[in-house]
Amino acid sequence: MAPTKSCLRMRGNLFLSDGFRHQKPLRPGYPHTRNYATAGPVKPRPYKDKTQAKPLVGVRPPGSATPNAKPSGDSKAKTGVVAPYWRISLGVILCGSMIYSMFTTPLQLESPSIAERDTLSKRESGVTSSSPMRLRMEAFIKAQQKAIVAALETLDPTQKFRVDTWTRPNGGGGISCVLQGGQVFEKAGVNTSIVYGTLPRPAIEKMRVNHKALDPDVDSLEFFAAGLSCVLHPTNPNAPTVHFNYRYFETMDAQGNCNAWWFGGGTDLTPSYLYDEDAIHFHRTVKEACDKHDREYYPRFKKWCDKYFHIPHRGESRGIGGIFFDDLDEEEKDQEQLFSFIKDCLTAFLPSYLPLIQKRKDMPFTEKEKEWQQLRRGRYVEFNLVHDRGTSFGLNTPGARVESILMSLPLTARWMYMHDADRGSREERLLKVLREPVDWV
Amino acid sequence: MAPTKSCLRMRGNLFLSDGFRHQKPLRPGYPHTRNYATAGPVKPRPYKDKTQAKPLVGVRPPGSATPNAKPSGDSKAKTGVVAPYWRISLGVILCGSMIYSMFTTPLQLESPSIAERDTLSKRESGVTSSSPMRLRMEAFIKAQQKAIVAALETLDPTQKFRVDTWTRPNGGGGISCVLQGGQVFEKAGVNTSIVYGTLPRPAIEKMRVNHKALDPDVDSLEFFAAGLSCVLHPTNPNAPTVHFNYRYFETMDAQGNCNAWWFGGGTDLTPSYLYDEDAIHFHRTVKEACDKHDREYYPRFKKWCDKYFHIPHRGESRGIGGIFFDDLDEEEKDQEQLFSFIKDCLTAFLPSYLPLIQKRKDMPFTEKEKEWQQLRRGRYVEFNLVHDRGTSFGLNTPGARVESILMSLPLTARWMYMHDADRGSREERLLKVLREPVDWV
Repeated sequence: MAPTKSCLRMRGNLFLSDGFRHQKPLRPGYPHTRNYATAGPVKPRPYKDKTQAKPLVGVRPPGSATPNAKPSGDSKAKTGVVAPYWRISLGVILCGSMIYSMFTTPLQLESPSIAERDTLSKRESGVTSSSPMRLRMEAFIKAQQKAIVAALETLDPTQKFRVDTWTRPNGGGGISCVLQGGQVFEKAGVNTSIVYGTLPRPAIEKMRVNHKALDPDVDSLEFFAAGLSCVLHPTNPNAPTVHFNYRYFETMDAQGNCNAWWFGGGTDLTPSYLYDEDAIHFHRTVKEACDKHDREYYPRFKKWCDKYFHIPHRGESRGIGGIFFDDLDEEEKDQEQLFSFIKDCLTAFLPSYLPLIQKRKDMPFTEKEKEWQQLRRGRYVEFNLVHDRGTSFGLNTPGARVESILMSLPLTARWMYMHDADRGSREERLLKVLREPVDWV
Repeated sequence: MAPTKSCLRMRGNLFLSDGFRHQKPLRPGYPHTRNYATAGPVKPRPYKDKTQAKPLVGVRPPGSATPNAKPSGDSKAKTGVVAPYWRISLGVILCGSMIYSMFTTPLQLESPSIAERDTLSKRESGVTSSSPMRLRMEAFIKAQQKAIVAALETLDPTQKFRVDTWTRPNGGGGISCVLQGGQVFEKAGVNTSIVYGTLPRPAIEKMRVNHKALDPDVDSLEFFAAGLSCVLHPTNPNAPTVHFNYRYFETMDAQGNCNAWWFGGGTDLTPSYLYDEDAIHFHRTVKEACDKHDREYYPRFKKWCDKYFHIPHRGESRGIGGIFFDDLDEEEKDQEQLFSFIKDCLTAFLPSYLPLIQKRKDMPFTEKEKEWQQLRRGRYVEFNLVHDRGTSFGLNTPGARVESILMSLPLTARWMYMHDADRGSREERLLKVLREPVDWV
């Protein structure tokens, strides 16, 4: 882990806190500011950042840090979460923290880390089409997160997303936007995550199987990862659960020059009750985004999706699929082409899903239908906790923010022993499709 | 896998189906007879044993097989489940199946497998104190299963356990007794499982770390495993969830002589609301059972339990512990002494838990308390699906009966993002204990 440096470290935290600061006004009565420590063995803690992030009155200068930029010697407070707190503006909190940090952090004049240099570059020059891909991907997913959260909030004016910003000790962090118990969504999460870290040799060797550009002769490599994840569990059992995740990974030399890189991602739909027109619309929208780049992509990634979201112990798929892909690097297409593909996939999300939720969110439903939805959510939990490589990787990563990883779990789930769908029922029809994936377009 | 043999195979299925046949009369309106195939990739199937288990009228002869004793060539139907079906007696079904089997299964005169010899021995001589330990353990846990199910049924006269008997292709099987949606128990499962199989060399090498008696020079070894598992999730949030599992494992030579053997097991309590007197009673009862055999057992196995039922990604325990142990073999104590210890642990279960459920089952509770219970059940699901070695081993075992493994999951569970207990609340008190295990006795 790169040593923490005072001023640069404070700048290093800047970009993580500015994703939603201007767009999302703070709401009265919103949950309190927390310090959710994620470094080391993960132990939920009560919030205790009041002392370190005292709301001081003053103008927020450029480069102010998050409330958690504590002295570098304090290993327990390396990461943290910021959520709106009454009417106190986040800028004021950040300013207070910066001032606190300035007076308590010893100045170390080591060369800045890549995360710190990236932060400096973003602050001084902004992100343009000539910026490194990692900065462009980060800027793009943060803008998409804002757009998606804003669009979802229009569906249910009574409910707003809670926004938590958190940081990682050696660069990076994330913004988690979560809504629960709403009229439209029982649980909805839209999260960005930015990671700067160091890959040990065994991880490099494992990754070399898919990426020959990785230097085989080094003991460790700096890496960067950025991703946007979304899981929406609607309240109405007629409306489908949807998930997407798009991510970018690269390794760098000590100067921050990109070594190997790849994109991954996908989106898939999980209905409790199957409406063919919804399945067709979803798959068609996704296919159109793929077709603009390669006519082979949709069939290839659709098959990959059916394979990935399979629950072996149940002999069924988690849902009715979509697309899934990973490790798309220079052997696939050049970086610009793949970034353009990722952008089109991501911007296709709202058109693929909004019409479905709009059509289904107010349909009448029975208690029995709600129960069936909860049983299906039990299977969703089984997939995510037993088989999903992303969840398992996250939970096993020291310092991971568990609440952000597990936001994908539904608000409610149900397990009934030996439950069977009635013959000829809509439930049975769904099970049939989950056991034998359908080509929808 | 040992080749399937016709007549002996039919006998081989006998002991698996007679656990509850006489004690539990079939109930009108009870779920239908099913064929729940578990061999190969697990795919839930609609029931289809009507043709192969036609209810023929006749006297049931000794040694009749389960309805799933299909021709040995049919790999898809090697295992199955039998549950009561209206008023048709199970004996009649078994008889029909045996007759079906007699006319369709080719006779192969190979030497009988260990499972077949054990079945023959049980049928001809019964199980006595001079029988091999595997038969004594099997007989004991089946008797305990009956006693526990009967005792639990007295708590809620409106609800009876559903009883499913299932078989494994090369010997063994189990009895799953499950009740759900009751007034006292939201979900309750009491399952026995008997396995005859072959250990490949890598598994033997892994087990040799703990059991030097295992022959290191063989490519494979026959093994036997028998266990009784129980998970009770009460409806009332004031009543604690309880779990126990006691198991015996041995390896045998080709003649069925025991080579290496060991016992494992434990029991633990998972309250949603903590009543100190309940925790003390539970731990004291368990301690008394341990103390009869070794004063070191309770402190040693209590610590092991706290360690095993830890949820690392939450930094808390699943519950308030109990005891846990594994690999108790001749290096610990002799086989008779350990069997006697296991017997005392198992017979201590009802005294450890019945007083608690009796005291709590009718307490008034609020919607908020029920919601807290469901949040705690979410954690239970997380432990079982992410960390429990037993569940993970089961789900990855080809031919495992998934419905029996996952009966441990609660009927309902809930996940709320960033849920926090109120300061000074009963919920916060529980969390404190889950983060820092308490010595209750």
